[in-house]
Amino acid sequence: MRNADHQPAAGSRRRLAAIVDAIVTSCREAVIDGEGDAPFPSRRQVVEIVGHLLELLLPGRPVDHELVDSDSLEQEVRRRASLLVDMLSMQISVSLRHGCMNGGRPCEECHKLGQEQAITFLGRIPHLRKVLLGDIKAAFDRDPAAKCLEEVVLSYPGLVAIAIYRMAHELWLLEVPFIPRMMTEHAHAMTGIDIHPGAVIGSNFFIDHGTGVVIGETTEIGDDVTIYQGVTLGGYRFRTTADGALERGYKRHPTVRDNVIIYASATILGGDTVIGARSVIGGSVWLTHSVPADAVVTIEEPDLKYKVGY
Amino acid sequence: MRNADHQPAAGSRRRLAAIVDAIVTSCREAVIDGEGDAPFPSRRQVVEIVGHLLELLLPGRPVDHELVDSDSLEQEVRRRASLLVDMLSMQISVSLRHGCMNGGRPCEECHKLGQEQAITFLGRIPHLRKVLLGDIKAAFDRDPAAKCLEEVVLSYPGLVAIAIYRMAHELWLLEVPFIPRMMTEHAHAMTGIDIHPGAVIGSNFFIDHGTGVVIGETTEIGDDVTIYQGVTLGGYRFRTTADGALERGYKRHPTVRDNVIIYASATILGGDTVIGARSVIGGSVWLTHSVPADAVVTIEEPDLKYKVGY
Amino acid sequence: MRNADHQPAAGSRRRLAAIVDAIVTSCREAVIDGEGDAPFPSRRQVVEIVGHLLELLLPGRPVDHELVDSDSLEQEVRRRASLLVDMLSMQISVSLRHGCMNGGRPCEECHKLGQEQAITFLGRIPHLRKVLLGDIKAAFDRDPAAKCLEEVVLSYPGLVAIAIYRMAHELWLLEVPFIPRMMTEHAHAMTGIDIHPGAVIGSNFFIDHGTGVVIGETTEIGDDVTIYQGVTLGGYRFRTTADGALERGYKRHPTVRDNVIIYASATILGGDTVIGARSVIGGSVWLTHSVPADAVVTIEEPDLKYKVGY
Repeated sequence: MRNADHQPAAGSRRRLAAIVDAIVTSCREAVIDGEGDAPFPSRRQVVEIVGHLLELLLPGRPVDHELVDSDSLEQEVRRRASLLVDMLSMQISVSLRHGCMNGGRPCEECHKLGQEQAITFLGRIPHLRKVLLGDIKAAFDRDPAAKCLEEVVLSYPGLVAIAIYRMAHELWLLEVPFIPRMMTEHAHAMTGIDIHPGAVIGSNFFIDHGTGVVIGETTEIGDDVTIYQGVTLGGYRFRTTADGALERGYKRHPTVRDNVIIYASATILGGDTVIGARSVIGGSVWLTHSVPADAVVTIEEPDLKYKVGY
Repeated sequence: MRNADHQPAAGSRRRLAAIVDAIVTSCREAVIDGEGDAPFPSRRQVVEIVGHLLELLLPGRPVDHELVDSDSLEQEVRRRASLLVDMLSMQISVSLRHGCMNGGRPCEECHKLGQEQAITFLGRIPHLRKVLLGDIKAAFDRDPAAKCLEEVVLSYPGLVAIAIYRMAHELWLLEVPFIPRMMTEHAHAMTGIDIHPGAVIGSNFFIDHGTGVVIGETTEIGDDVTIYQGVTLGGYRFRTTADGALERGYKRHPTVRDNVIIYASATILGGDTVIGARSVIGGSVWLTHSVPADAVVTIEEPDLKYKVGY
Repeated sequence: MRNADHQPAAGSRRRLAAIVDAIVTSCREAVIDGEGDAPFPSRRQVVEIVGHLLELLLPGRPVDHELVDSDSLEQEVRRRASLLVDMLSMQISVSLRHGCMNGGRPCEECHKLGQEQAITFLGRIPHLRKVLLGDIKAAFDRDPAAKCLEEVVLSYPGLVAIAIYRMAHELWLLEVPFIPRMMTEHAHAMTGIDIHPGAVIGSNFFIDHGTGVVIGETTEIGDDVTIYQGVTLGGYRFRTTADGALERGYKRHPTVRDNVIIYASATILGGDTVIGARSVIGGSVWLTHSVPADAVVTIEEPDLKYKVGY
C-alpha cells in the first residue's frame, strides 16, 4: 500500500473540509459552561499526580521506580515531593479558578490558595502512611490467600482504592473542587471500586476483590470494617424540592459501625440505615433499615428446585 | 549485580534457543485464521483513536490537552480531525480487508471504502456532541452527588462509556467490522460498563457508578432512561439450529421504554421482554417477562433472620 | 500566568521544606518489611512483561505491533522472546531474593534460579497457544454475538483474563513468588475478572462479559465450563487456628466439574461444594452445598408485586 493511495479524491477532500468546519463550529456551540474561558483541570495530570503520590504513600519501599537502594531513597522522595507540589498547585489553582464550588471567591486568590492547599495536603502524607499500614495489616489478617504483607502492597486492588480514597478525602476536606472526585474515579477505573471522596472511613479498612463496590458520598464507616466485592452502600428514594429538582447534600447513605463484615453483593441503602457494631451482613442481602449491634443478617439459602436429568 | 551475571550458562543458552524455535513454529501453526496474510486492526491504534475522539466529542472545552485557550481551539480541533481521518481510514481498511463480516467484497475497494467511512463517521460528530450534552444534563439532574455539569464531564465513568458507545454505534451502522466492538471493549476496560455497539439507545441516558452493567447486542432503550451499577440487559435461553449450533442475529435482549429507572444489580433477560414506559425496576430484581407501563417492580425485603448476640 | 507566580512565598517554602523532611522520615519509619534492603518486583515491569507475552501467546498473528508481515514475524518473535527472558529473569530473581515464600533459600542462588525459571516458563508458550485456541473456539461456539474467531481475539476481555491466568498459573506451579498474583491483578484491572493464579482450570473455558467474576485460590474447574459476569467461586466461613488467626492453604473454594454453565451473578461458596458435571446454575443463585451431575438450579422468579399507576 503506497502512501499516494492515502490521498482522498478531490470530492472527498471537499466533503472532509466541510465536516471539519462543522466540528469546529460545534465545539464552540455545544458547550456546557457559561463561565468564560477558565480551563478544566487535566485528567492526564491528575492521573500522573496519583501515580507519584502512590509511590510516596505506600508503606514499604517505593514500589515502582525500580530497585531504589536506601541511599538514593531520600533523593528520590525529595524529587517527587517537589514535582508534586508544582503539579498539584497548578491543578488546584485551575480547579479553584473554574469556580464550580466556589462561586464567590475572587479569582486572583486562586493561585496562592492552590499552592497553600497543595503544601497542606503534602503535610498529611506521613499520617496517611501510618493509616495505610493499618489497612495493609488488616488485609493480611483477614484474607487466607495473602502470603505476606508485601503481597498486599504489590497486588491488592482494594489497597490501591483505599489509598487513593484517603488522599482524595484529604483534598475534599480542604474543599478542593473536582480533583478529589477525579482521583477516586481514576481508582474506580483501575480497580472497579467506587468510593466517593466525601465518605468518612475509619482505620484498618479491608476491601477484598472489590469489583463493583460502591460507597456513596455521605457514607460513614467505623474502624476495622471488612467489605467484599459487589457491596453497595448507597442512596434510597432521593428527596426532591418543591419544584421537582433533587435535594443535594443531606445524608443519603448508610452508617456502618466498628468491626462489621459485609459479604459479597450485599446492598445497604439509605441515610437513616445504621449497621450496629460487630454485625455480619451475609452475601446478597438487601437492606434498607437499621440492624442492632452483634446482628447476623443472612438470606436463607433459596429453596432450590434442582432437577436431576432435566 | 553485575551485567555479566545476566549471561545464561551455555546449557541454558542452548535450551533457550530450542524454546524460541518452538515458539516461532507455534506462532505459524496454532493460528485461528485461514485467510492469508491480512493483518488485524491494531488495538493500540483503536485506543488512541478513541482518545482523540473523546477530546472532540465531549461538550465543554476539549479536556485533556492542557489549558487550550479559545484562540488555539480551532487549530487544535483541525489538527485532531486530520489525524483522526488518517488513523481511522487505515484501521477501517484493515478491518474490511480482513473480511470477517464482508466475505464477498473485492479487496481493492477496501482502502477507498475505509476512507469514505472514516469521513462519513467524522460528519456525525456535531450531532453526537449535542446528544452527549443531553446525557451530561441527565446525569446532573438525576444524581444528588453531582455538583455541576463540569464534574460530570471530568469524573463520570458512565458518560465515558456512553460517549464511546455512541461513536461505536455510528461505525456499527456503517457496517465497519471489528472496530465498533474494540471501541466498546476499551470503554468496558476503563469503566466496567459493557455496552454492545449494536444496542439502540435513546437520548438523555444516565448510568450511575456503572461497574458490571451489561447491555446486549439487540437491546433497545428509549429516551430518559436511568440505569445503576450491576444491571444486566441480557439474553435468555439461546436458540440453536437443527445441528446444535447457536442461532445468531435474532433479537435476544430486552426492550426498555422511555423514562424507565432500573436500580442496582437488576437482571432483565430475553428478546420478548418489554419494560413499559415510566416503570421502576427495583434493585436485585430478576425478570424474564414483560411488565406494563407505570409498573413498580421490587423484591420484598427478605424476611431477615438476624440474631443479636449470635 | 507567569512562571514567577509559581514561586511560593518564603513562609510557604520553609513550611514545605519541613514537610518534605517529615515525608522522608516517614518513608524510613512506616514500612512493612523487616527484611533488609531487598527491593520489590516492579509492577510496571510486570505489566510490560504481560504485554509482550500476550503478543506471543494469542493464536492468530501477533496483534498489536502493527501490520507485521509473515516474513518479519520470525524476527519479531525472536526479538520479543529475547527481551522476555531478560525481563522475566530479573523480576523473578528480585522476587525470590525478597524471600517472602522462600524463607530458607540462600540468596546467591536467586539469580541463577530466576533465569532457569524464566526459560522453563517460556518453554510452555507453544502448549499455552494450543490451549488458548480451545478457549477462543469455546467463546465463538457459546456466544451468539460473536461474529468470527478474530473478533474474540480482538475484543473479548474474558480471553485476556484467561490468557493471563494461564501464564500466571505456570509461574505459580514453578513457585515463583509475587509475580503470578501481580499478573492476574493486572488482568483484574483490565477486565474486572479476578482469577487467582492458584486456581486449576481445564480446557475450553469461556467467561462472557466477565466484570465482577471472582475465582478463588483453591478453585478447581473442569473442561468446557462457561461462566458469566458477576459469578463468585469463593470461600465460606474461614477456619481459624487456636490463637484466632486465619488458617491458610487448605481447600476453601468450590470444585466445578466438566460442561457446567454458571449464569450471571451466581455465588458458589465453600471448599466442600462440588457442582456435578453438565449442571446448569441459574443467574443470582446462592449456593453453599454440592449439587449432583445434570442438575438445573434456579431461583424462582420472585413473586413480583408490581403495581400499575403506583
